[in-house]
Amino acid sequence: MKIDRDQDDAIVRLLVSCDDRCGVVAGVTAAVSASGGNILDVDQHADPLTGSFCMRVAFEGMTDRNGLETALDELGISYRIHRASPLARMAILCSKQTHCVADLLWRASIGELPATVTRVISNHTDAEQLAETFGYQYTELPVTKETKASQESEVLKLLEDDGVELVVLARYMQVLSEGFVERYADRIINIHHSFLPAFPGGRPYHRAFERGVKLIGATAHYVTAELDEGPIIAQRTAHVTHRDGVEDLIRKGRDLERVVLAEAVRMHLEDRVLIENGRTVVFE
Amino acid sequence: MKIDRDQDDAIVRLLVSCDDRCGVVAGVTAAVSASGGNILDVDQHADPLTGSFCMRVAFEGMTDRNGLETALDELGISYRIHRASPLARMAILCSKQTHCVADLLWRASIGELPATVTRVISNHTDAEQLAETFGYQYTELPVTKETKASQESEVLKLLEDDGVELVVLARYMQVLSEGFVERYADRIINIHHSFLPAFPGGRPYHRAFERGVKLIGATAHYVTAELDEGPIIAQRTAHVTHRDGVEDLIRKGRDLERVVLAEAVRMHLEDRVLIENGRTVVFE
Amino acid sequence: MKIDRDQDDAIVRLLVSCDDRCGVVAGVTAAVSASGGNILDVDQHADPLTGSFCMRVAFEGMTDRNGLETALDELGISYRIHRASPLARMAILCSKQTHCVADLLWRASIGELPATVTRVISNHTDAEQLAETFGYQYTELPVTKETKASQESEVLKLLEDDGVELVVLARYMQVLSEGFVERYADRIINIHHSFLPAFPGGRPYHRAFERGVKLIGATAHYVTAELDEGPIIAQRTAHVTHRDGVEDLIRKGRDLERVVLAEAVRMHLEDRVLIENGRTVVFE
Amino acid sequence: MKIDRDQDDAIVRLLVSCDDRCGVVAGVTAAVSASGGNILDVDQHADPLTGSFCMRVAFEGMTDRNGLETALDELGISYRIHRASPLARMAILCSKQTHCVADLLWRASIGELPATVTRVISNHTDAEQLAETFGYQYTELPVTKETKASQESEVLKLLEDDGVELVVLARYMQVLSEGFVERYADRIINIHHSFLPAFPGGRPYHRAFERGVKLIGATAHYVTAELDEGPIIAQRTAHVTHRDGVEDLIRKGRDLERVVLAEAVRMHLEDRVLIENGRTVVFE
Repeated sequence: MKIDRDQDDAIVRLLVSCDDRCGVVAGVTAAVSASGGNILDVDQHADPLTGSFCMRVAFEGMTDRNGLETALDELGISYRIHRASPLARMAILCSKQTHCVADLLWRASIGELPATVTRVISNHTDAEQLAETFGYQYTELPVTKETKASQESEVLKLLEDDGVELVVLARYMQVLSEGFVERYADRIINIHHSFLPAFPGGRPYHRAFERGVKLIGATAHYVTAELDEGPIIAQRTAHVTHRDGVEDLIRKGRDLERVVLAEAVRMHLEDRVLIENGRTVVFE
Repeated sequence: MKIDRDQDDAIVRLLVSCDDRCGVVAGVTAAVSASGGNILDVDQHADPLTGSFCMRVAFEGMTDRNGLETALDELGISYRIHRASPLARMAILCSKQTHCVADLLWRASIGELPATVTRVISNHTDAEQLAETFGYQYTELPVTKETKASQESEVLKLLEDDGVELVVLARYMQVLSEGFVERYADRIINIHHSFLPAFPGGRPYHRAFERGVKLIGATAHYVTAELDEGPIIAQRTAHVTHRDGVEDLIRKGRDLERVVLAEAVRMHLEDRVLIENGRTVVFE
Repeated sequence: MKIDRDQDDAIVRLLVSCDDRCGVVAGVTAAVSASGGNILDVDQHADPLTGSFCMRVAFEGMTDRNGLETALDELGISYRIHRASPLARMAILCSKQTHCVADLLWRASIGELPATVTRVISNHTDAEQLAETFGYQYTELPVTKETKASQESEVLKLLEDDGVELVVLARYMQVLSEGFVERYADRIINIHHSFLPAFPGGRPYHRAFERGVKLIGATAHYVTAELDEGPIIAQRTAHVTHRDGVEDLIRKGRDLERVVLAEAVRMHLEDRVLIENGRTVVFE
Repeated sequence: MKIDRDQDDAIVRLLVSCDDRCGVVAGVTAAVSASGGNILDVDQHADPLTGSFCMRVAFEGMTDRNGLETALDELGISYRIHRASPLARMAILCSKQTHCVADLLWRASIGELPATVTRVISNHTDAEQLAETFGYQYTELPVTKETKASQESEVLKLLEDDGVELVVLARYMQVLSEGFVERYADRIINIHHSFLPAFPGGRPYHRAFERGVKLIGATAHYVTAELDEGPIIAQRTAHVTHRDGVEDLIRKGRDLERVVLAEAVRMHLEDRVLIENGRTVVFE
């Protein structure tokens, strides 16, 4: 559903998690209504495997936030209230390959991503001119085996100073420390260039070629302590044939990666993604 | 969401249409809750173009239907209440080509379509043995230019006698009269072998080949008085190349047609499709 | 390219393998031409990774097979000559699930697969009536842990007696012995219900659900001694969401499996698949 | 097949058209071989509808071009000989929307398109900074109803002066005159934002929304005198739902348009596209 941008500041998104039981949908929508909210969109999901329930309500015209919170507290549910405005603050981390960062910056520049890009951070200079063209700040923080820890501290400091709420790894070729991942838990999105769980780790296109698969893929997921094991947000595949060498897989893959990453980032920014038991619920 | 088949008889689906205004979602969910209903699934849509609003609520445990209807009447909305049980009664009409009818019968036989197939009706005998294998009744009603009207009357009589609620045209190559279409308005689903609105009418694969398109498609839609102009429920395309002759388009198209038709029929049978201003809302 | 069925008996397909070097394409096409053959289709592939070369030439009007063989021998290449007629003899093995076998039999019955189905063999009776409807022989050979070896011998004997050239495992839930696999090396096609190399082995849909992937897939491959490691012929994926439970993945997967398996079988039957270094070349 | 860039200067592509008759494949490959050429890739197609035949041979090591031409002349066929080096000279025309031009420039800048971009020409300034970032020349030539003819003359003059061989209309919102189209016959590629032949002409996304289709598409085609009727090179579609408003169709469409246009341009630049009777043969 198209968001009316003129009223962005008035739009609120309520995310609810609880055990699946009678009356939650009615209770939550009544509470929103009582707080003056006009419901624009409601979606919910009950997971038969775990008995968990989650729900997203988008509404406008909330006049009594305290009243809403009191009513929700009485329902005994977990919830978060997000305002669509001001826009979320997002940092992009990248390395030598520029297809994903170029794509995200272009989308941000035409208003396709509801975020304020605070800065592009990279251990290389390849994307510097791109960032400048689109009017975004660029900070190069080179890294060597020896400086890995200190460079990461510098990255973290920039994120803190910028008030970043979402970190996007746009083909950033450094593994983050556990501390970093914990600090931004459920708020770091990575793009992996295979259809996970196939080909986790390095050189997935080379391994795909060697295995002789007839598909390649890309996966956007939240980053967790275990590499390429985080909750998946979006995936796509494309057909390949014996005629496609590794270079062709890489070329075709670039088109998948940037679309899948942008889709996942947009879903997150619109507060459409919930994580339940290591899997995502994406309210499209 | 998976329907718990053991409780099919208890599941109710409420379909609502009205103008878009404050409070409908909260009002409807409260009414369902007050009637004893436990909401399993709710989905809604407001059309920015027309200002219309529609909503689907699936719930179980309704103890007070009269109370629910009274509450809904007070909201001043249009609504329909469907019980998931007993299964809807569905007739399949076909002609010489059997791929769609064979597919539907196979799906019905393994429980994939929540319907009771009352009968297969055809102006040919090609699908007769298939129907028998799957245990369904088959009635041949041949038609000529002279007997067109009388044959249609016989078809209509069978549908009436069988208490049919959904008519599926599985490549039935006879144009239905306006009276027939009106009699089963919004309850006749047709499969057209092109991505409409391209190539309406006859021989779409031949015309696609002649135009040199790189895609073929299939479209499932409700039948209206104007040929191939009814509300679209589902569509898919597949890639073709210069190597594909007309016969290849037809072969590839068969795989599209049967999947698209089955998808549309299942959506209809689960009360997931609403028609608003000539377009469908499909609550997946 | 559409095969002219009236001339099937005259069509010959020549498959060539050799090291990549100058002059092979010109040499082979000249040899075909000199033997009276009119080339209908030629396709070739050089693998940059291994330096191997392979080629497929379809032609009609061969008047001098001995001359062709002599000329090809002189080129110092490996080759096979297949006549499109008589049709290849194909057996289908299945277990309780019928979607793949039903689909293959239907396709064979309408002439979509250029094969003579010799027999359906199963360790269950579920597909028996289907086979009879389409007019194919059905042999039930039940199996227990104790009778596994003897049952496989019976299967092998039937294949021998029937002169089978292609064995299709249409969801046959028994692992074949190494001896069986060797006996029909490169002539057993299996359908696996995941996008390999993800989720090899059992219960792939359950594991896909637990991992929270946003895609499911199906893979048709030649069977080798290592389970689910054989050369891949065809693969497809379909989108799934958090709303899809395991039962939905299984349902959506059925539509993938039967299309992917049929595609792989047709490619094989038209002599379009070559195996080079554990990967396939599929000349479409 | 991946082109070895180190040998680009030595690679030759021979495109052949003639009536379908015996011996052409053998004759052409023999002629290439006799001229010293080592065949890298050969593909051919016979159109059953028209009896026309066409063929593409890529080879390296040609030592006797005169000898090759003499031999081909003797076969009585039409042919063109293209050298892969130097790169073809390509101009990009665009208007206010920048997604296609930005994408093409980025692809050119990373070496994905084998072309020299001579210049971006636009009737607006929106893409100017982008072009500069990627290091390409940009010429603004505004146009009004009154200056349409003179502006087109200026465009043509620039194309002539730059020695342009391919003109790409990357959402250029001006209809070209017949003279322009004739001057660059079969060398102007346009992207249309629908799955043609559906929704030709203006505002296809709006009309798609109003019709309620469940797919949108994009089509890359050669420009001919009749609007949106030229030979189609590439097409793709994407699923949409009732939730997608016109703005969403436009957003999703952008991702289709740029991929489809880039694919068509790359096919053309690699001399893989032939036009036969208003339809294309694309040797992938």
